[in-house]
Amino acid sequence: MAIKIYELCAADEAVLFSPHCWKTRMSLAHKGIDHESSATPFSKVAGIENGAGRRVPVIRDGGTVVEESFAIAKYLDETYPDAPHLVGGVAGASLTSLIINWSQTQVHPAVVKLCLMDIYNTLAPADQEHFRTTREKMFGKSLEEFQAQFDMQDYSGLKAALLPLELTLKGQNFIGGETPLFADYVVFGPLQWLRVVKGIDAIPLEGKVAEWFNTLLDMYGGMARSTPLAQPAAAA
Amino acid sequence: MAIKIYELCAADEAVLFSPHCWKTRMSLAHKGIDHESSATPFSKVAGIENGAGRRVPVIRDGGTVVEESFAIAKYLDETYPDAPHLVGGVAGASLTSLIINWSQTQVHPAVVKLCLMDIYNTLAPADQEHFRTTREKMFGKSLEEFQAQFDMQDYSGLKAALLPLELTLKGQNFIGGETPLFADYVVFGPLQWLRVVKGIDAIPLEGKVAEWFNTLLDMYGGMARSTPLAQPAAAA
Repeated sequence: MAIKIYELCAADEAVLFSPHCWKTRMSLAHKGIDHESSATPFSKVAGIENGAGRRVPVIRDGGTVVEESFAIAKYLDETYPDAPHLVGGVAGASLTSLIINWSQTQVHPAVVKLCLMDIYNTLAPADQEHFRTTREKMFGKSLEEFQAQFDMQDYSGLKAALLPLELTLKGQNFIGGETPLFADYVVFGPLQWLRVVKGIDAIPLEGKVAEWFNTLLDMYGGMARSTPLAQPAAAA
Repeated sequence: MAIKIYELCAADEAVLFSPHCWKTRMSLAHKGIDHESSATPFSKVAGIENGAGRRVPVIRDGGTVVEESFAIAKYLDETYPDAPHLVGGVAGASLTSLIINWSQTQVHPAVVKLCLMDIYNTLAPADQEHFRTTREKMFGKSLEEFQAQFDMQDYSGLKAALLPLELTLKGQNFIGGETPLFADYVVFGPLQWLRVVKGIDAIPLEGKVAEWFNTLLDMYGGMARSTPLAQPAAAA
């Protein structure tokens, strides 16, 4: 039976861009579990599965609802132990926590500087309002003022944030070693986010990180490669 | 039988400050293996165990010589599988690689800005010469010019570098989870380096990171807490 995944979507419901939802999409593919996607705009996220204040991704697996990508990965390993593991057991899960916090505090901010207005422009009007209100409160300035601080074509900050990954990939194929683990999808998520909202198949990554990202885009039948990209020209 | 560990020392041979050697000291204690220390000044490191171009730490375990702290941790897990594991198996080792590269590129530079001249001042004259030559080539400026760029009392850069760890420790006791793994010693190493060369028992860390660091200092009979600190007043 397929697992249902509630995923954030753009004005075009086929455009799925959330970094956290991509972590879960890749996790399900890694496990070889079919998924049924329920595209959900920002303004509908809180009420998913009769929730209050939910955040995507949320999955429903039969009678079980699980929220948040790392919790989902651990659930999948516990529930489907015969499929390839995602977190690497108790030790792997603990180590993965630091990698998640590194990605969230280093890689995500570097991505946001490159594409905040791109994200905004992909959304439907009601979701643009939600996005503007929550993000302007977070940044303490308007979206436009935030974006004006950064050159949306300057990838040097992202490249610097990814240095620990670049060095790691000189010695192994994936963060997980010979094959990917959930930790790979943790860093893949924000890069796929950037790729989808910018509507650029080949975002300008370099070196081993570029090779690794392209490999992940092509895995699982090219699921991540073939996902519809935003059409920036049509927006705004 | 005790394992011999070649460790970097200051002018005072009792002062052991190398971050990488501390990773191995803690690894041996974690495994419950006695060690015999061979204090080695900078200028003698390359020739350890008839080597050419060696880097500390180096261990000799009976007839086996192993160099570099991560290689040593993996060797100890393979050779002493019944003692508590250090790297968490194949998956754990792969994930640890990213944590090593994060620490090396984020935590180490933040520590060096706080204590480059402190390190220099702890060394014997012949080693000061070696340290000056190699580091000035690396930084492209004199030690004094490098240090003058940074306030040696401003810990904000180190605190920022440690943010992923602080967030992780809100949810678990150690990077390794309930108990430490080698990944904990990877980040402990540079902080102990700072503590020893500054000669300050309580370096001004904050929050969960401070609790975690103090816990590690007190583990294994307080080995890391009780190591002799440099005496900055007597130097230079």
